[in-house]
Amino acid sequence: MRLLIINPNISDSVTALIEAEAKLSASPGTEITMHTAAFGVAYIETRFEALIGAYATAQLAAEHHTSHDAVIVAAFGDPGLAGLREVLPVPVLGMTESALATACLLGHRFSIIAISQRIQAWYREVVEANGLIGRLASIRALDRPLAGIGSVQTDHAEALRTLCERAVQEDGAEVIVLAGAPLAGLARAMRGTLPVPVVDGVSSAVRHAESLVALQPGKAIAGSFAPPPQKPNRGLPDALAALLGPRTSG
Amino acid sequence: MRLLIINPNISDSVTALIEAEAKLSASPGTEITMHTAAFGVAYIETRFEALIGAYATAQLAAEHHTSHDAVIVAAFGDPGLAGLREVLPVPVLGMTESALATACLLGHRFSIIAISQRIQAWYREVVEANGLIGRLASIRALDRPLAGIGSVQTDHAEALRTLCERAVQEDGAEVIVLAGAPLAGLARAMRGTLPVPVVDGVSSAVRHAESLVALQPGKAIAGSFAPPPQKPNRGLPDALAALLGPRTSG
Amino acid sequence: MRLLIINPNISDSVTALIEAEAKLSASPGTEITMHTAAFGVAYIETRFEALIGAYATAQLAAEHHTSHDAVIVAAFGDPGLAGLREVLPVPVLGMTESALATACLLGHRFSIIAISQRIQAWYREVVEANGLIGRLASIRALDRPLAGIGSVQTDHAEALRTLCERAVQEDGAEVIVLAGAPLAGLARAMRGTLPVPVVDGVSSAVRHAESLVALQPGKAIAGSFAPPPQKPNRGLPDALAALLGPRTSG
Amino acid sequence: MRLLIINPNISDSVTALIEAEAKLSASPGTEITMHTAAFGVAYIETRFEALIGAYATAQLAAEHHTSHDAVIVAAFGDPGLAGLREVLPVPVLGMTESALATACLLGHRFSIIAISQRIQAWYREVVEANGLIGRLASIRALDRPLAGIGSVQTDHAEALRTLCERAVQEDGAEVIVLAGAPLAGLARAMRGTLPVPVVDGVSSAVRHAESLVALQPGKAIAGSFAPPPQKPNRGLPDALAALLGPRTSG
Amino acid sequence: MRLLIINPNISDSVTALIEAEAKLSASPGTEITMHTAAFGVAYIETRFEALIGAYATAQLAAEHHTSHDAVIVAAFGDPGLAGLREVLPVPVLGMTESALATACLLGHRFSIIAISQRIQAWYREVVEANGLIGRLASIRALDRPLAGIGSVQTDHAEALRTLCERAVQEDGAEVIVLAGAPLAGLARAMRGTLPVPVVDGVSSAVRHAESLVALQPGKAIAGSFAPPPQKPNRGLPDALAALLGPRTSG
Amino acid sequence: MRLLIINPNISDSVTALIEAEAKLSASPGTEITMHTAAFGVAYIETRFEALIGAYATAQLAAEHHTSHDAVIVAAFGDPGLAGLREVLPVPVLGMTESALATACLLGHRFSIIAISQRIQAWYREVVEANGLIGRLASIRALDRPLAGIGSVQTDHAEALRTLCERAVQEDGAEVIVLAGAPLAGLARAMRGTLPVPVVDGVSSAVRHAESLVALQPGKAIAGSFAPPPQKPNRGLPDALAALLGPRTSG
Repeated sequence: MRLLIINPNISDSVTALIEAEAKLSASPGTEITMHTAAFGVAYIETRFEALIGAYATAQLAAEHHTSHDAVIVAAFGDPGLAGLREVLPVPVLGMTESALATACLLGHRFSIIAISQRIQAWYREVVEANGLIGRLASIRALDRPLAGIGSVQTDHAEALRTLCERAVQEDGAEVIVLAGAPLAGLARAMRGTLPVPVVDGVSSAVRHAESLVALQPGKAIAGSFAPPPQKPNRGLPDALAALLGPRTSG
Repeated sequence: MRLLIINPNISDSVTALIEAEAKLSASPGTEITMHTAAFGVAYIETRFEALIGAYATAQLAAEHHTSHDAVIVAAFGDPGLAGLREVLPVPVLGMTESALATACLLGHRFSIIAISQRIQAWYREVVEANGLIGRLASIRALDRPLAGIGSVQTDHAEALRTLCERAVQEDGAEVIVLAGAPLAGLARAMRGTLPVPVVDGVSSAVRHAESLVALQPGKAIAGSFAPPPQKPNRGLPDALAALLGPRTSG
Repeated sequence: MRLLIINPNISDSVTALIEAEAKLSASPGTEITMHTAAFGVAYIETRFEALIGAYATAQLAAEHHTSHDAVIVAAFGDPGLAGLREVLPVPVLGMTESALATACLLGHRFSIIAISQRIQAWYREVVEANGLIGRLASIRALDRPLAGIGSVQTDHAEALRTLCERAVQEDGAEVIVLAGAPLAGLARAMRGTLPVPVVDGVSSAVRHAESLVALQPGKAIAGSFAPPPQKPNRGLPDALAALLGPRTSG
Repeated sequence: MRLLIINPNISDSVTALIEAEAKLSASPGTEITMHTAAFGVAYIETRFEALIGAYATAQLAAEHHTSHDAVIVAAFGDPGLAGLREVLPVPVLGMTESALATACLLGHRFSIIAISQRIQAWYREVVEANGLIGRLASIRALDRPLAGIGSVQTDHAEALRTLCERAVQEDGAEVIVLAGAPLAGLARAMRGTLPVPVVDGVSSAVRHAESLVALQPGKAIAGSFAPPPQKPNRGLPDALAALLGPRTSG
Repeated sequence: MRLLIINPNISDSVTALIEAEAKLSASPGTEITMHTAAFGVAYIETRFEALIGAYATAQLAAEHHTSHDAVIVAAFGDPGLAGLREVLPVPVLGMTESALATACLLGHRFSIIAISQRIQAWYREVVEANGLIGRLASIRALDRPLAGIGSVQTDHAEALRTLCERAVQEDGAEVIVLAGAPLAGLARAMRGTLPVPVVDGVSSAVRHAESLVALQPGKAIAGSFAPPPQKPNRGLPDALAALLGPRTSG
Repeated sequence: MRLLIINPNISDSVTALIEAEAKLSASPGTEITMHTAAFGVAYIETRFEALIGAYATAQLAAEHHTSHDAVIVAAFGDPGLAGLREVLPVPVLGMTESALATACLLGHRFSIIAISQRIQAWYREVVEANGLIGRLASIRALDRPLAGIGSVQTDHAEALRTLCERAVQEDGAEVIVLAGAPLAGLARAMRGTLPVPVVDGVSSAVRHAESLVALQPGKAIAGSFAPPPQKPNRGLPDALAALLGPRTSG
């Protein structure tokens, strides 16, 4: 089984974190292909950055999905996910929806721990878009500048633990979701040290991807996740245009 | 990895269907232990029957969970699930929540296909309790008497297919959830013949159970899914009493 | 008029509190029959304990409902309520739904005052299941160990009053619901001393039961609260089996 | 116990229907005082008519509430109810909220049967304002002109029954609410002939009023249902001004 | 273009504030006619006062709407708005719905800043009635007595600014709505000094009114905002009766 | 006042429709600048096409916003809107949110009329994202292939009218929203011929843009609509990079 994992951001250090956790989480026989966004920002914490990340992800997915069994969008917030689910012939998963799916199997209400104050509003909207706002206990986030995106989880280890504990004690969190690719691997490191189950987006996405590949639920050919109806298009990179079918003129 | 799967109903024929699908869905190395409710009804389609099934399931789980890595409650509606999640030291999964988690990774809105008219109201409440009513496109159900609970999927094959197709065409279903243990295996049989992805509760629960065992998110020791605080109890079967801690007198 | 009131817990001291409040609340001519769970725990504060209490309640209701005009499930959280409403020929009421119905006639948003931190998550889910989460201002609870379940309201009188007052001042509570059978009678004791109306589950249930008996709205014979369709059952206590109709073999 | 029942409309024939049902529903010893709006329309089916009815009701309540133990606003839609709950020293109940409270004790989802197509949108908004839209199965209404508002229930008996039956069969109604004062008494007449429980606003309000008077939950003196803070007022009828406290100049 | 603006309260000082802001906000060529309620209270902060204000507004609207192109109900909470929208032949706008519409174009979640603690519960219900509770970040309010209703914004300038800033910093407000006619003009005064956009009800209503007049979307002649069906009415002021069509006898 | 209107699609014929309606709707003195996406598809009806349109829109906005007072994203569904609101120094409006804001001022529940079956699921998600699903009466759409995107409104005039009428009669629509830039101008053409108000996205956006420019609510410099915090970026077109601040290296 081959999984294509796309980091919608340009940070190679984060790609390395994602890859490490993905390999630790994957079942025997699962191969991981990593790609880092060719353009964009160091990490996504706003809607505008997500817009850019979505397009960068779409290009990478279009170029590289062939010969893979599933594709994972490896930024919390799932930029481009729903669109790619329409056009790709294989399952596409996001870190957020995967982490939330796992969290919902472990408790009724979850809290999200995030790496910046700014990112919280966007995460909240993503939870809303997933229809799960009723199960969100809280979002808590670091409130200090990040020295380096690849070392957030070590630089702020105690602060992150404190956020988790306060979510449990003060917000009623029954599950903790560690959000953001820069925290990939932290759930594994914290195993057994938090009072409630802790969930990670990368490992959740890898495992869910394997499950979908195994279960073969099928690709939509009708409804709103079928490939878009063919229509004129123009000016797109070849790989993207190919996803839309034979090129036509507008 | 050893999974304990409990059929909350007394139907051995349904247990056989569950076991067959569970084995086909499980990863190599996963062992399945099946148990059928010692008391109860042939299949659960009402809240009262679910109350009985929950207690029967609790007893079996209490008696047999040792030496298993996860427990699956194998009736749609998940009788007893939330309670068992509190007391058992391993992950506990239900067919409904597992199927919904899978469905949410495949599309935005899903329809549930059920085996009886009566069962629909209860299923709707279970979706509400899962906080996912905003993603429910519809519930559609067979409207004829069932000759035998173990042969529903073959006896009503065409009617079930028609329900699926109407859910896609008329209700906007982007994913189909085939609900109820008596339909275990049907999603596998229908693979590739429906216009949208199709999800099964048993296979979803088996795969999610394997993932949770692999990821080791941890058991709650605080919050509302921690084991219940100790307090006097009386008159319970030994296995249930053991889940509540040392016996005390009221 | 005869009301059957079932305490889903094993605490005789709580049964006594319920009975006292029920008799004070009842109209002239209403007779009260009390039953205490034959098995279970001292008081329900978790989903697992509710699962047990539901089954214990069902057995008592099955055995004793004859010759009564209505049945009351006298634990906050209403264990087994919806199921019993299907099978019993008379109205069945729960303390929670009754208290919430009363509260909704007195203000727009209510707060629930509870006896333990742990119990809050479960109460919240019960309010959600009643579809009234939009009217819940807050849940506040005692945070100290309970010396004895029968003396909570006297042992913690001042703390309970403080919780009520803070709910009004800080949470916007327009009505206070004193939750849990161990607090039965406290609303009566606090009459006239709180700045907003205060509601009690036992008295609410008794009065609503009397009203339903008087108004005779009728028992469902169609829809999801009709008695369950007959189907094979096995291994049930006689009284429960009788609720499911003529015994058949699976 | 003395109940003041106000018909917010000018139709004496409807007042007679309300009074008849109220007297049949009331407990021994409960006295009923009826008042009909001094100005307004024959029956309320729009938001503008409700605005007028609210003011007419407020005037009557202000003039006549003294020496009564509770006040009932006897038009579906509850015009003026929340405002009167602030200013009157006794419990105030509406037909809609009372019927919904009763319905919620009998099933999970209810349908409302109404007397005109036009009235449905307003009723839906009232259910929304009560926070109960999640429990509304449907609203169905007569689609023919009404010859006389006092004889709707006899003129359209068969059509009303058909609406009830379709709500059960097609909409999943577990309880039927017969809406509108012109249908007062119809639930009593239909007793035992519908497949699900049937609820009436007048009888529900009378019984709930009696319960609140008996339970004495208390009048809010803080929070948003306390009497309005005193402030200058001008030009109001004496009785209304009296509800606002000592007259002051603006 | 001529706009009729009605102050549902009796405070001439507030009418002056409204008029000043309306004139500053209006486009060239827009004429403003102001009317102050003939009866009522100094400012509306409760449901009962809103009931009175609605009726006072309806009378003024009925008497003066002729020769105007749109009508504005200039009290936050929009007393009488929905009813007047049915009967008047021109667009009718409220301060709350107008401010919320503007706020929704500037951010996802807004906070409302109000002039009294008491008023908050009612404002919350109005946001609920507008279906926008999911976008409400918070309501914050002054907690001191008001010396004069016409000078609130100057008397409490610093406290109001602090409320705004805390809503942004602590509640996640992306837009600030300054609520209540007594604050008319304050948004203009605070321009450029708050960290998020700030919205005013009067100016929003004036601009939206101009837009609706320009776009001519049409008056409903079917559905629930069409004029009420004709039916007997009695005892109404002539202007109100005229809105209901030819007078008939009951 | 200068408005920049961006057509996120490549269809010049649709740009022409948008421009025509925009000019007819604009106030005297408002100048319109039109831009058509440099790349993309003929019209957006899926999430993937919206992803592309969002990026194309962002590029045009980045390149051309200078010297304009507001920017309008002129495709229903508002691709890229929230992101652009963060980075641009002027108000940014979308056709959907603008049409919904207008609709909410005209009635309580609206229906959306769309040009293709496929587009409905995406529109529904956009309404959800706007937090207005509770006010959506229905979405109805053409079910025939479109001969040319620039002539939809004339080619399907009767079918579109029928959809509107059925939404009013069968779905309870109190306002009609004609959705999609290809229908720009149709509301103007249908003026006075539908039984409820009819709203258009282009004209609504133009008028709301003018209002926001006039009212000057301010640009967020804190909260989640402030410009994104500066961080490393790479590979972006110059104009986009400029919106993110001084270029830095990753």
